[in-house]
Amino acid sequence: MADDRGVWEKPIAVVLLSGGMDSCVTAAVAALDHRLALLHSSYGQRTEAREKRAFEEIAAFFHAPFRLAVEQQYLSRIGGSALTDPSIAVPQADLEAARFGHIPVTYVPFRNAHFLSVAVSWAEVIGARRIYIGAVEQDSSGYPDCRPEYYRAFNETIRVGVRPETRIDICAPLIHMCKADIIRRGVKLGAPLDLTWSCYKSSDVACGTCDSCALRLRAFAEAGVPDPIPYLKA
Amino acid sequence: MADDRGVWEKPIAVVLLSGGMDSCVTAAVAALDHRLALLHSSYGQRTEAREKRAFEEIAAFFHAPFRLAVEQQYLSRIGGSALTDPSIAVPQADLEAARFGHIPVTYVPFRNAHFLSVAVSWAEVIGARRIYIGAVEQDSSGYPDCRPEYYRAFNETIRVGVRPETRIDICAPLIHMCKADIIRRGVKLGAPLDLTWSCYKSSDVACGTCDSCALRLRAFAEAGVPDPIPYLKA
Repeated sequence: MADDRGVWEKPIAVVLLSGGMDSCVTAAVAALDHRLALLHSSYGQRTEAREKRAFEEIAAFFHAPFRLAVEQQYLSRIGGSALTDPSIAVPQADLEAARFGHIPVTYVPFRNAHFLSVAVSWAEVIGARRIYIGAVEQDSSGYPDCRPEYYRAFNETIRVGVRPETRIDICAPLIHMCKADIIRRGVKLGAPLDLTWSCYKSSDVACGTCDSCALRLRAFAEAGVPDPIPYLKA
Repeated sequence: MADDRGVWEKPIAVVLLSGGMDSCVTAAVAALDHRLALLHSSYGQRTEAREKRAFEEIAAFFHAPFRLAVEQQYLSRIGGSALTDPSIAVPQADLEAARFGHIPVTYVPFRNAHFLSVAVSWAEVIGARRIYIGAVEQDSSGYPDCRPEYYRAFNETIRVGVRPETRIDICAPLIHMCKADIIRRGVKLGAPLDLTWSCYKSSDVACGTCDSCALRLRAFAEAGVPDPIPYLKA
């Protein structure tokens, strides 16, 4: 796509960057043939400030020319999730339950639609044709908005919901991968996994026991790669 | 649906209430057989404070048991619209251009997805099965996210994006109506049209000349009903 920086400039891709491992590897994949427009949301999640710091450090690592951090605090006012409601405890990991389709209490109702809507609005204004998201179906926590059919439906909503000349597609390059392969891919691409933050509970040293820590630790073990971040209890 | 107020209680409906005429009539339609959960967004639009006041006055009129006003100011940071970017002028009305499929500069990229996403998250938490929106296809300003195909696609995104046991549908009862019929319907239902705000430009007295004022004034004239609000120039 031509823009004022010349037709040979790489196209722009918006990447949803939570600051976790999956989104960091996704940014590394997108960076292969795009200029990065990195997007982060603070939505009143427990580890909000720590995730924002991870976003900033990863954005600096990639020298991303476009960056946008938004506030969607109303998600925590709506509640309904252990991630945003202090009265609901973040449980210890139960990876078996997740595998069998149980939706955990860390599910934030319809969360990814909020992030994707910002990504689409921003992409339409800055002329990005692709939105990258680090959603992972298998090995994830069973969230409905991490499945391929969700992204097919959202892509159709984009197609009919923007200007007729606008073309924007969501791309989820990790969706069929397991977490161990994501780590191997990240290591191969030189993604800064040491700057990422995954823990749902803590903001100083990762707890090592919540769902997100448990999935991460298991994946590093399977990949045969040491996890570069410290843990309270692993 | 049963809840702690008893099985004979009316079900809850979330209604997107901008404070304009269409959303006010939509609330009146929904109120016929639902308890109202009224939702408003401030997103840095020019007449933000005036619209919020209209929301509050209309919510008080309906004695709505659930109310939520959210801030989505990032939409104005993203820009790309005369409604949110002070450097883009709100044009005088050009109703012919709108009729022929031209998308006006007041289009806010992918705006309704932001509002609907909040509505879905909230609906899932409070147990509402319906989301009402006052979108109007014909006679609207040519916005892509005011067409039936957009709501069909969004409904599919909801179906695959929430808990498997959750059922939520978007309902746009005015979508095939013309603005004059909407006014007649509103008058018949006793909707408080005198509390609504439509002007894109001004927050004290409606300008009478922007697209939104022009559509409203033409509709009242066609309906043969006096518009209960004053105008600077009509």
